[in-house]
Amino acid sequence: MAHGAGGAVMQSLIEKYILKHFGGVQVDVPIDALDDAAVVQGMVLKSDSYTVKPLFFPGGDIGRLAVSGTVNDMCMIGGDPLALAEGFILEEGFNIRELDRILESMRKASDEVGVPVVTGDTKVMERGALDKFVINSSGFGRRNPLLDQNLIVARKDRDVSGQWLVDSNVRAGDKIILSGTIGDHGIAVLSARQGYGFETKVESDAAPLKSVVNSALKVGGVVAMKDPTRGGLANLLNEWCQKSHVGILVEEERVPVKEGVRAACEMLGLDVFEVGNEGKFVAAVVPSRAEAVLAAIKANPLGKDAAIIGEATGDFELVAMETVVGGRRIIAAPAGDPVPRIC
Amino acid sequence: MAHGAGGAVMQSLIEKYILKHFGGVQVDVPIDALDDAAVVQGMVLKSDSYTVKPLFFPGGDIGRLAVSGTVNDMCMIGGDPLALAEGFILEEGFNIRELDRILESMRKASDEVGVPVVTGDTKVMERGALDKFVINSSGFGRRNPLLDQNLIVARKDRDVSGQWLVDSNVRAGDKIILSGTIGDHGIAVLSARQGYGFETKVESDAAPLKSVVNSALKVGGVVAMKDPTRGGLANLLNEWCQKSHVGILVEEERVPVKEGVRAACEMLGLDVFEVGNEGKFVAAVVPSRAEAVLAAIKANPLGKDAAIIGEATGDFELVAMETVVGGRRIIAAPAGDPVPRIC
Repeated sequence: MAHGAGGAVMQSLIEKYILKHFGGVQVDVPIDALDDAAVVQGMVLKSDSYTVKPLFFPGGDIGRLAVSGTVNDMCMIGGDPLALAEGFILEEGFNIRELDRILESMRKASDEVGVPVVTGDTKVMERGALDKFVINSSGFGRRNPLLDQNLIVARKDRDVSGQWLVDSNVRAGDKIILSGTIGDHGIAVLSARQGYGFETKVESDAAPLKSVVNSALKVGGVVAMKDPTRGGLANLLNEWCQKSHVGILVEEERVPVKEGVRAACEMLGLDVFEVGNEGKFVAAVVPSRAEAVLAAIKANPLGKDAAIIGEATGDFELVAMETVVGGRRIIAAPAGDPVPRIC
Repeated sequence: MAHGAGGAVMQSLIEKYILKHFGGVQVDVPIDALDDAAVVQGMVLKSDSYTVKPLFFPGGDIGRLAVSGTVNDMCMIGGDPLALAEGFILEEGFNIRELDRILESMRKASDEVGVPVVTGDTKVMERGALDKFVINSSGFGRRNPLLDQNLIVARKDRDVSGQWLVDSNVRAGDKIILSGTIGDHGIAVLSARQGYGFETKVESDAAPLKSVVNSALKVGGVVAMKDPTRGGLANLLNEWCQKSHVGILVEEERVPVKEGVRAACEMLGLDVFEVGNEGKFVAAVVPSRAEAVLAAIKANPLGKDAAIIGEATGDFELVAMETVVGGRRIIAAPAGDPVPRIC
């Protein structure tokens, strides 16, 4: 299960097996970069499978997830999503009313963000060959028209080599902005599974982030963006750290976590930094623009709880956290995901 | 199972449930057209899931299928595929050597056609939640540079309203060219399942068709193209018939079928017209260019058995066949697929 969990074990599967075959292709942002999406001839391409269990959970469902996740990955690299292709695989006998609810939810999310579903595919597997229903969500987009001006602003502070918002762009001194509370999605999905009865109802944050991303890019100075999905914030920061060859220092008390999520994590022994999110993003911003970008993000309802949670540093090359009780601890990349099949 | 089989039952699922939510979006070729791929802002987008069982079969495997199928659907509408995104869903415990063989096969097919895999995604479902392995294959492409000249040539014969090679473009008098033998893929997959022992070994035709499609477009005069996958040639011709409001008359003796495929179909009581293919296409060509297009297709190894199998007519609005024994029979759209999970 860890091979699909978004952490270090999956990274090793991809590096050892998948890149062996598909690496080395020369495109603007190649598969080797293992970034959020690929860029080919100036166009952004993204594909993701959704196997969340259960299909419906507080705050969302597999359909909302499929639209949001694919849109968000295209946004993260600096793309402007234009269209989605949605493939459905159903287990024979799958309830048609559930399918209908899922499709309605996809259309709603698609309308919210203004990215249409333009093509699709339907396959059926015989009873027992698939656990109900999975979605393959892919899409393409153009370069975000706000990206050039955003990078011009960033370059007033320092050199930025990449033309896209890739994981290797972070430099010492950059401020790390988190767009809101973490852990909501993973805990909401867990709470919907049998046998968990939490006191507080936690809702998934699944949402397409295009508008709040654009709020940030309009200010300018953003050099990297990424959404903390599988593997959570811990995995995201470690990826930046490895690919950008910088350290990242986070202040625990600045990381927003809802009380219900914190309580559930304590009860279950989960590290909230490793729990997946589907409606949050992290931006690395040049220092002079960080406060302005933060203000713009907070002005958008999707970013109202945003905070500067730390900064990149040249002093070490790992992710460290100043804890609330004082002292520092290292945040390692999780081996797997503490909560399987959350997306 | 019929809901995923590519025939009339699936058509009704899509029209009743999926278009209800996703229809009505204004793009160049919208989802409502139910064509091979979508066209948005001049770019072609396609997504398909592959659930073939077994994963390996004579002449191919799920990986070769995933690359070929997505490339072909983009070609069929007049696209020039630029890049592929491949998503993998594995059952926990899936054999890593099988994964490796599949990936190698995908890379080989991708190299053959010159369309790189640039991004991907890996998910794992727990043991029992998925029958081994499925692939989600998507891609995008630009408008085929040969398309404008091809349509200029077609317009010397008659008006062609569409700017793409859509299913609604066929008109009375158009010649119907089939690029080779039918039934190979479906029968090859069936033969690989337990319990079938055919005398003759039949190999799947799974192949990316870009080069042979381009051979045809270079000559010019092609107005529609489509690959006879799920539902086979019978489904394809019926879709053209319905969307173009023409009849199609096919001569049975001109339709190439390999002896081993014919024998297997007889043994199993299958109609070869309904069996799926993965390396063939059908072109509707204006009359004056049909022989020249046929010659160009036959000159390509992927089209060596091509033939003009019939023509469109205004005399009726269904698919009819002159049989080898004389007389005509109607070829109806199959309700489902006689061979489930062949792609």
